[in-house]
Amino acid sequence: MFSQHVDVPGPGAYTGSLSINSIEDTGVKGSILNHSEKKLKLSDIGVLVDGLREKGLLSVVCGNTEIVSAAAAALNPDMVAIEPPELIGTGIAVSKAKPEIVSDTVSLIKRINPKTIVLCGAGVTKGDDVKSAIKLGTEGVLVASGVIKSKDQKAALYDLAQAAL
Amino acid sequence: MFSQHVDVPGPGAYTGSLSINSIEDTGVKGSILNHSEKKLKLSDIGVLVDGLREKGLLSVVCGNTEIVSAAAAALNPDMVAIEPPELIGTGIAVSKAKPEIVSDTVSLIKRINPKTIVLCGAGVTKGDDVKSAIKLGTEGVLVASGVIKSKDQKAALYDLAQAAL
Amino acid sequence: MFSQHVDVPGPGAYTGSLSINSIEDTGVKGSILNHSEKKLKLSDIGVLVDGLREKGLLSVVCGNTEIVSAAAAALNPDMVAIEPPELIGTGIAVSKAKPEIVSDTVSLIKRINPKTIVLCGAGVTKGDDVKSAIKLGTEGVLVASGVIKSKDQKAALYDLAQAAL
Amino acid sequence: MFSQHVDVPGPGAYTGSLSINSIEDTGVKGSILNHSEKKLKLSDIGVLVDGLREKGLLSVVCGNTEIVSAAAAALNPDMVAIEPPELIGTGIAVSKAKPEIVSDTVSLIKRINPKTIVLCGAGVTKGDDVKSAIKLGTEGVLVASGVIKSKDQKAALYDLAQAAL
Repeated sequence: MFSQHVDVPGPGAYTGSLSINSIEDTGVKGSILNHSEKKLKLSDIGVLVDGLREKGLLSVVCGNTEIVSAAAAALNPDMVAIEPPELIGTGIAVSKAKPEIVSDTVSLIKRINPKTIVLCGAGVTKGDDVKSAIKLGTEGVLVASGVIKSKDQKAALYDLAQAAL
Repeated sequence: MFSQHVDVPGPGAYTGSLSINSIEDTGVKGSILNHSEKKLKLSDIGVLVDGLREKGLLSVVCGNTEIVSAAAAALNPDMVAIEPPELIGTGIAVSKAKPEIVSDTVSLIKRINPKTIVLCGAGVTKGDDVKSAIKLGTEGVLVASGVIKSKDQKAALYDLAQAAL
Repeated sequence: MFSQHVDVPGPGAYTGSLSINSIEDTGVKGSILNHSEKKLKLSDIGVLVDGLREKGLLSVVCGNTEIVSAAAAALNPDMVAIEPPELIGTGIAVSKAKPEIVSDTVSLIKRINPKTIVLCGAGVTKGDDVKSAIKLGTEGVLVASGVIKSKDQKAALYDLAQAAL
Repeated sequence: MFSQHVDVPGPGAYTGSLSINSIEDTGVKGSILNHSEKKLKLSDIGVLVDGLREKGLLSVVCGNTEIVSAAAAALNPDMVAIEPPELIGTGIAVSKAKPEIVSDTVSLIKRINPKTIVLCGAGVTKGDDVKSAIKLGTEGVLVASGVIKSKDQKAALYDLAQAAL
């Protein structure tokens, strides 16, 4: 389980903010940072990636374009999730709309920081999309509406997971 | 002459914001982005770097740490200005306090994006600091308080410029 | 002439921000604050209203609902501009869509701070709309798209101004 | 128990934000809004006060100055907490430093919105401070560092509570 976001690295004068300490206590494995609906300042992402690592937590930084995803990789997170805005929440499959955006971004990220695990963060609703995403060079998917909006969420998740094997 | 900042790429529903179009009309050569006193969202910096280039304007993205400066370079701006917070506005010379931060950051930036011009954005008040900064691998300086706070601003600027020759 | 916005009260560590000092030098009469496209924090509006007055500049605080407009009036600005979001930039005349929102908001503002001049900040494109707005209790209009988007801007302005006599 | 903050009224495209729905599920009685460490936009406070009420939750809006507290009251929250910045987290007692700020702000709030319950949100560490705050016209206190930083938190709370009887 991952946190959707985290605001600040540690305790301090941060009433009302979500600190890494507070998400740590919930048993999450890590946190998403810079989700397309919660975009962050460049320097804050840097601080939060480091802060999560210090606590043994994983970081997934989302990027909406090739250069933003490349910059995210330079911050040295565990994972970068590519989220072309054209595909977020639209139901359009990543293999059909601009597959080259995904493969080009994977190449750029790997050149900047080869250890980065790249996730496909949009355009995934079915098992076939997972297979396409993996063929394009990503190593996993970050999925929300594709599962949340399906009638049988468990079956939808199972379908995606099986395709990744 | 450079703008200190720019908010949005173009005209639109942006009452109260500073657009690239509006700074273009003033005759500036480009804009600083992500100054330590005006930090920006990662994805906005990406959009603004591209927007400035489309108008023939230069971009200087500031970075406060090694990884933030590296990420800035991945966004493909014309220049990246390194601003270690320990040196901003303190009058401490870059050659004395942590010179290796500057040289390490220059190496990292050049590996990610060799075309990036790297500026030393803090710890510069005298001609000697400019020489030190250039020895550390930067190609110029971004200076504010060092000149603004000096009694004879013209002489201070001349001193810095001459040291860069 | 009014500024569309202002960021900070005075000079200081505000590189990239628009200070009251800097707009003062341009000869404006005052500034709009909290425009629907540049919404501000409550406490910042308080500081800016006071800062503008200290420099002899006028403040117009925009409010999008009855209670927000009432709160704006409590901050003691010179003017409050009522901007129901349903009317902003739509071309729908204030006298036709929800005229009671305007008259009710005027009453509420006057009860909280009788000295506040109330402007109608949306739903005004023609002279007739100005007349309607004044009948509803406002003392002027704040208009943008209604003039900017008209083919003959000078004629549009003249039409509005004459209706206010 | 109150939430320290809430970001958005309802569910929606708000990944990473704290919605009223999500705090409702935790069993809180309401939420603090506009805490001095988490200041909010004027129009967002208006939306959140209304959103909390719709769910049967209470709202406490913090204000750092007289006019900001008055504006907070105009937004019709259940409570307004007065937090003069000079007193926040300093240990200086409200009865010693500027007691007239508190009594003047209470008067202003009551004139704008007589139903508002006014809390003293700073300068309270001991039972005597609670008594002083109540004498100055407030009906309760909002306290953080005064209890959190005490060696025996339970005893500190008990001391404050007893003084309010």
